[in-house]
Amino acid sequence: MKNSYRVKNKLTLLIVITFSYLGFAQITDQEQIKKIYDTALSQGKGYDWLNYLSNQIGGRLSGSIQAQQAIDYTKAQLDSLGVDEVWLQPVMVPKWVRGTPEFAYFETTPGVTTNVAICALGGSVATPQQGIKAGIIEVDGIEQLTVLGKDKIEGKIVFFNKPMDPTLINTFSSYSNCVDQRYAGALEASKFGALGVIVRSMNLRLDDFPHTGSMSYGDQLVNERIPAAAISTNAADLLSTSLKLNPEIKFYFKQNCKQFDDVQSFNVIAEIKGTSKPDEIIVFGGHLDSWDLGDGAHDDGAGCVQSMEVLNLFKKTGYKPKRTVRVVLFMNEENGLRGGNKYAEVAASQNEKHIFALESDSGGFTPRGFSFDSTDKDFEKIKGWKSLFEPYLVHYFEKGSGGADIGPLKNEDIVLAGLRPDSQRYFDHHHSENDTFDQVNKRELELGAASMASLIYLVDKYGF
Amino acid sequence: MKNSYRVKNKLTLLIVITFSYLGFAQITDQEQIKKIYDTALSQGKGYDWLNYLSNQIGGRLSGSIQAQQAIDYTKAQLDSLGVDEVWLQPVMVPKWVRGTPEFAYFETTPGVTTNVAICALGGSVATPQQGIKAGIIEVDGIEQLTVLGKDKIEGKIVFFNKPMDPTLINTFSSYSNCVDQRYAGALEASKFGALGVIVRSMNLRLDDFPHTGSMSYGDQLVNERIPAAAISTNAADLLSTSLKLNPEIKFYFKQNCKQFDDVQSFNVIAEIKGTSKPDEIIVFGGHLDSWDLGDGAHDDGAGCVQSMEVLNLFKKTGYKPKRTVRVVLFMNEENGLRGGNKYAEVAASQNEKHIFALESDSGGFTPRGFSFDSTDKDFEKIKGWKSLFEPYLVHYFEKGSGGADIGPLKNEDIVLAGLRPDSQRYFDHHHSENDTFDQVNKRELELGAASMASLIYLVDKYGF
Repeated sequence: MKNSYRVKNKLTLLIVITFSYLGFAQITDQEQIKKIYDTALSQGKGYDWLNYLSNQIGGRLSGSIQAQQAIDYTKAQLDSLGVDEVWLQPVMVPKWVRGTPEFAYFETTPGVTTNVAICALGGSVATPQQGIKAGIIEVDGIEQLTVLGKDKIEGKIVFFNKPMDPTLINTFSSYSNCVDQRYAGALEASKFGALGVIVRSMNLRLDDFPHTGSMSYGDQLVNERIPAAAISTNAADLLSTSLKLNPEIKFYFKQNCKQFDDVQSFNVIAEIKGTSKPDEIIVFGGHLDSWDLGDGAHDDGAGCVQSMEVLNLFKKTGYKPKRTVRVVLFMNEENGLRGGNKYAEVAASQNEKHIFALESDSGGFTPRGFSFDSTDKDFEKIKGWKSLFEPYLVHYFEKGSGGADIGPLKNEDIVLAGLRPDSQRYFDHHHSENDTFDQVNKRELELGAASMASLIYLVDKYGF
Repeated sequence: MKNSYRVKNKLTLLIVITFSYLGFAQITDQEQIKKIYDTALSQGKGYDWLNYLSNQIGGRLSGSIQAQQAIDYTKAQLDSLGVDEVWLQPVMVPKWVRGTPEFAYFETTPGVTTNVAICALGGSVATPQQGIKAGIIEVDGIEQLTVLGKDKIEGKIVFFNKPMDPTLINTFSSYSNCVDQRYAGALEASKFGALGVIVRSMNLRLDDFPHTGSMSYGDQLVNERIPAAAISTNAADLLSTSLKLNPEIKFYFKQNCKQFDDVQSFNVIAEIKGTSKPDEIIVFGGHLDSWDLGDGAHDDGAGCVQSMEVLNLFKKTGYKPKRTVRVVLFMNEENGLRGGNKYAEVAASQNEKHIFALESDSGGFTPRGFSFDSTDKDFEKIKGWKSLFEPYLVHYFEKGSGGADIGPLKNEDIVLAGLRPDSQRYFDHHHSENDTFDQVNKRELELGAASMASLIYLVDKYGF
């Protein structure tokens, strides 16, 4: 008996030691995070997924066939990961269609014309079938409309040419500082009797790509709405110079875009159930819709595949989350945010408890860090994790907004966060035909996914 | 008298206060550095210079006409900056010429061939005129030659296929870990009776570009030297897979590169003399030569124009350095380091006192920081400046090497430093026909130049 007892005891001890050792080895944060990065860089699936989304499907404007193909494809890929649940969340989305390619030129003297690259802004009305030809007046932002007044604007096309500020290090700040001319330029100019608006592309680079993006007429009557188009930065500079030489230039443009009735679409959702706290939800995602000009590789195919990759990395590294981790590929961020709103609405109606939401919607570039919308107390906790990311050259942990799609989840109990990749090249591509798969670097994409997975791992482990 | 004295005194006081205030305003480090970054991003000249070097001149292999054109062009541009002195420093350089395009295929069964993309390694001998056709044996790095031995290698072509490790965050570390097979593979394999070597391109990405680079025969007799070529990563994977199915594959390659006698060339040098300590020299530069396949935009046109830009930024911001600041565009870094050696030799012979040397030779990507080869004491001082760079997202200040060209300056009195841009994309381009101007982002290039200028400003102001 005694001997047997001893043997048992020794065995128990051995088992305890062994398990402790294994347990310890498995939960060292440095080690788990290294496993995540190593796996992303050597066995990541995101780049192949993005290749398919970009090159087999292409631009995924809300309500388009491509958007539906992307829903079907990503759902099938998420199914293949062997996670606990994958489903589609119905949401009605707006359907805007560009129609045939836009056409524009300016005329310095009758018969002497120069073609310029334009594209309709998303949500714009068409021009009359024969196009619009009128005098054109340049303004340096919306504020200048009031200075000029109805006298100078009525019967003309307004050319919004406020450039992005090149001296701001974060290019999203430059974007924020002048995107109002794109979003509200047509509405505001119409109040002064303008016939249409042409807006300098939101692009820091001089090139020939016009960049589309959302615009709004607010609740303006349909018959008062005027058409709006973006012009490439090179063409904007040329037009501006030409106007200085000859203010009498006439501008012509034609576009036949159209807004249809809302159509059925879906958010794509997949999750791994938490082992010990399944009711606490950690959500992360990007938006599956894109503009129609490029293939939406950076905006936001990258964010979608990085979010899907988080589940893949947890599976591949054998990490079983305590809390429920859920990826959402939101539909219709670009021109309506219907997916983000629907997700938050359903979450609220089901009393789901979200503790953390992370969005990747700033391009598939080298990750520099994260921005956090949180209480000071939670932010202090988060900053305690910062040194774990330094070996991966991820240094930026600052307060800031999370992302458009997760914004509707905001309440006092949730921490919102955004992945912050290097922003220098983003607006070279954003919303233009230059947003294509070949402009995404595999390693940069994978490092972003690994950074997201590492942060989610820490949130899951330590909570808030 | 009394009154007049008082007035004078007040005037003096006013003048002193005014000058102190102006002086203070001008020398606030934050302000000067912001001026430098703002100027680089809004009035930088580097991108236009690089456009000319890349698209009007092209690849600048040592001893080529293009290398001489680049010397003439950069000297003229430096002259136009209105600095104190611009001169050419003579240096003899090796002249290696690629000849007609290389050709290679592998033959799985007689008559069934697959063409593969190769390029001669820099410094390689030609194949015999009819090419070399032989069995091919794959090895995972130089170490494996000894394991296989003469029996398995003699009469064959050796295929070095050790890949770069994707899990290392700094891609230069992956490069260092396997570049020996490119540099010394031919010399080592010839000792086992190999007829030639084919080396997997130093590229983390799977693509179709073969990447050249330097190799050496040491002091091997000319008639014992065997030819060496790089093969693209896609072709390397295909060849490796095919060899697993059929180890009897024959490989054919032909190249007619040639080493000529040394020719005259130059380092291009320009400086602003220091106002109070002109004998203390701060030197910075890149290398003006490049490989011949692309146009050498990242390696190292970027480093050259960033270094030239430092002088431009000091001129444009009105900063007058206390010490002498000198740019050197080194010749022949790629296949000889003759320019770097010559510069150090002349500096020593003239008893010049260099206190700091900074090289940019890691591509024109977003700057992440600097590496420093210095004493601990100097490094502590440098780390005190780190927070000044954080608004520009420049966080990496670590001990490490400076750069190849400035290496020969090393002694106990000098601090050597290297600009460390984001390294993820570098080896997609390095030494291949894919190293072209269109792959350089203007802002990323300018941010690197501003980071260099800011560091040089601090070294000039505070010394070591």
